[in-house]
Amino acid sequence: MTSNRQWRLKRHPEPDEVIATEHFSFAETPIADIGEGEFLLKTLVLGTSPAQRSYISKGLSMHDKIAVGDVMRGRGTGVVVQSRHPDYAEGDIVVASTGWQDYSVQSPGHQNPNVLSLQKVIDPVRPLTTTLGVLGSAGATAYFGLLDVGKLRPGDTVVVSAAAGGIGSCAGQIARIAGCRVIGIAGGPAKCAWIKEAAGYHAAIDYKNEDVGDRLSELCPNGVDVFFDNVGGEILDTVLMHLALNARIVICGFIATDYKEGGYSGPRNYVNLVRKRARMEGFFIFDYRTRFAEADARLRAWFDAGKLVNTVDIDNGLEHMPETLGSLFRGTNCGIKLCQVAPDPD
Amino acid sequence: MTSNRQWRLKRHPEPDEVIATEHFSFAETPIADIGEGEFLLKTLVLGTSPAQRSYISKGLSMHDKIAVGDVMRGRGTGVVVQSRHPDYAEGDIVVASTGWQDYSVQSPGHQNPNVLSLQKVIDPVRPLTTTLGVLGSAGATAYFGLLDVGKLRPGDTVVVSAAAGGIGSCAGQIARIAGCRVIGIAGGPAKCAWIKEAAGYHAAIDYKNEDVGDRLSELCPNGVDVFFDNVGGEILDTVLMHLALNARIVICGFIATDYKEGGYSGPRNYVNLVRKRARMEGFFIFDYRTRFAEADARLRAWFDAGKLVNTVDIDNGLEHMPETLGSLFRGTNCGIKLCQVAPDPD
Repeated sequence: MTSNRQWRLKRHPEPDEVIATEHFSFAETPIADIGEGEFLLKTLVLGTSPAQRSYISKGLSMHDKIAVGDVMRGRGTGVVVQSRHPDYAEGDIVVASTGWQDYSVQSPGHQNPNVLSLQKVIDPVRPLTTTLGVLGSAGATAYFGLLDVGKLRPGDTVVVSAAAGGIGSCAGQIARIAGCRVIGIAGGPAKCAWIKEAAGYHAAIDYKNEDVGDRLSELCPNGVDVFFDNVGGEILDTVLMHLALNARIVICGFIATDYKEGGYSGPRNYVNLVRKRARMEGFFIFDYRTRFAEADARLRAWFDAGKLVNTVDIDNGLEHMPETLGSLFRGTNCGIKLCQVAPDPD
Repeated sequence: MTSNRQWRLKRHPEPDEVIATEHFSFAETPIADIGEGEFLLKTLVLGTSPAQRSYISKGLSMHDKIAVGDVMRGRGTGVVVQSRHPDYAEGDIVVASTGWQDYSVQSPGHQNPNVLSLQKVIDPVRPLTTTLGVLGSAGATAYFGLLDVGKLRPGDTVVVSAAAGGIGSCAGQIARIAGCRVIGIAGGPAKCAWIKEAAGYHAAIDYKNEDVGDRLSELCPNGVDVFFDNVGGEILDTVLMHLALNARIVICGFIATDYKEGGYSGPRNYVNLVRKRARMEGFFIFDYRTRFAEADARLRAWFDAGKLVNTVDIDNGLEHMPETLGSLFRGTNCGIKLCQVAPDPD
């Protein structure tokens, strides 16, 4: 252990800017001392989420904001390297709000109620990217979104937007395992091929080169039972016109409009919710924290049976982290975008 | 019995036109003969519904269309005056798709599955306007929308748009009976006074003269648990910003945008469904036909106990029927808009 490299917020991105290295400054500081009841976590892998943009944007957000000069907040997996807490020993693997840095001081007794609390991973599955991948919050988000909010039933026709994204790549696999027919919407032929090969999708719609409405008519002649939406915007409006009776739309995200200021329309075809006696519902993975063990057990069982694949897309090196997050908004990732900061311990 | 007066569709209204007499022609024809298994119903009262506009509009609709020259479709209450059906006797009171005419031939064995089927009213409550009022489909729509779709709970803060409308005036009363705090949104001081005096509302917001968002902040400091929306448009978008956690938005109608062609935005604040883990759901009263007896029993019990008032707004004379329907779109009615075609029989 030498010093602690950190990415700190340098300036808030403008609404039309993609997150990039220029918004952050890379600093080195001494590793902090831990107090009684705390432990020091060495970051191994960092996750990414579109929600992280709202930590640093200026607009309304359901998340706490980060000030200029603060370490960028983010979730990661680490190994305990020093501990003054009886429940955490050196070598334990923990998923926590580590921030974008090599070392973080964790206080299990003082958790921010507005972020996912830290969790020790019992019997972690190697490689440890699984803890932020299909066996982590991406998998759990798809799991609860589809099964709990979407009330998935075998035989349902399920459509997922941003199907090649982190949560989308889990959703395709889980819906297929649940006995559904799964259609993914993604941008470009490469992603469309990938979601069918790697992420469980039976069929793909390339929204950049195909008419989404026409393709939905072809692929879902009886309508869409569950739409798991990560995107919003025009794609949501189009899918609204292809609902089956009693359809469920699970609102997971809205990357198409999330950071636009003004000028965009809402889903005007929401009126079809009446024609189809359908439902549109938002959810938030934090609310399911008391049920994570349930998701974990089922996801692991599928993983162990070879039904669920850890669809991760990994960059290497903390120094790339701003670009790693930025890639979510450039749409260049296939799968759950992570950054390996240090090698998995033996 | 002499002849049968009828209103027939003369021309389809343009998108920006309010429904008026000029869209219909008033004709007189002989009363039709009934066949085996049919009965002749003399119309006593006709109901109105915003959905009737979509019967005669040119755009997409979930309803069957009416051709030029056909009798205008509509639901009404009548008395059986001739019968060749064993289950229907002279003097029976029946709610049915009578159309806008004095006499209709009813075939209980051949019901259109796309409209509410005919129903004999057992022990009708006088005056018979109740059968199309709080004890009819207006009451049942508010009942199922609030209790079943909206999952109303005592203590909930409930907001209703078009609160002075037919369904709105029932919704206010039912939500109050269910132990909720009920706020109505209506246009103008007269309607706002009326909903508090006659329709159960604890408070009113005059959207024509007040800032709806500011008033919601004042009246619902802890947010809106259930929004029963008859309107859509800007009011829906505003209420979306005032949801409580786990709020339910019941989409009953969207008179603000229903017949606009292009140019309007959808509810862009639907993104708040995620922030508030909330739900927006459409429903259709036809789907509840097997449960009408349940609603009827409870609505009658409340009515008999004096808790529920028959909030009707009655025109007199079949010759006024186009204007009676048009008044829904001019927003001039307070309560359930009906037209008395013939006096209640003794």
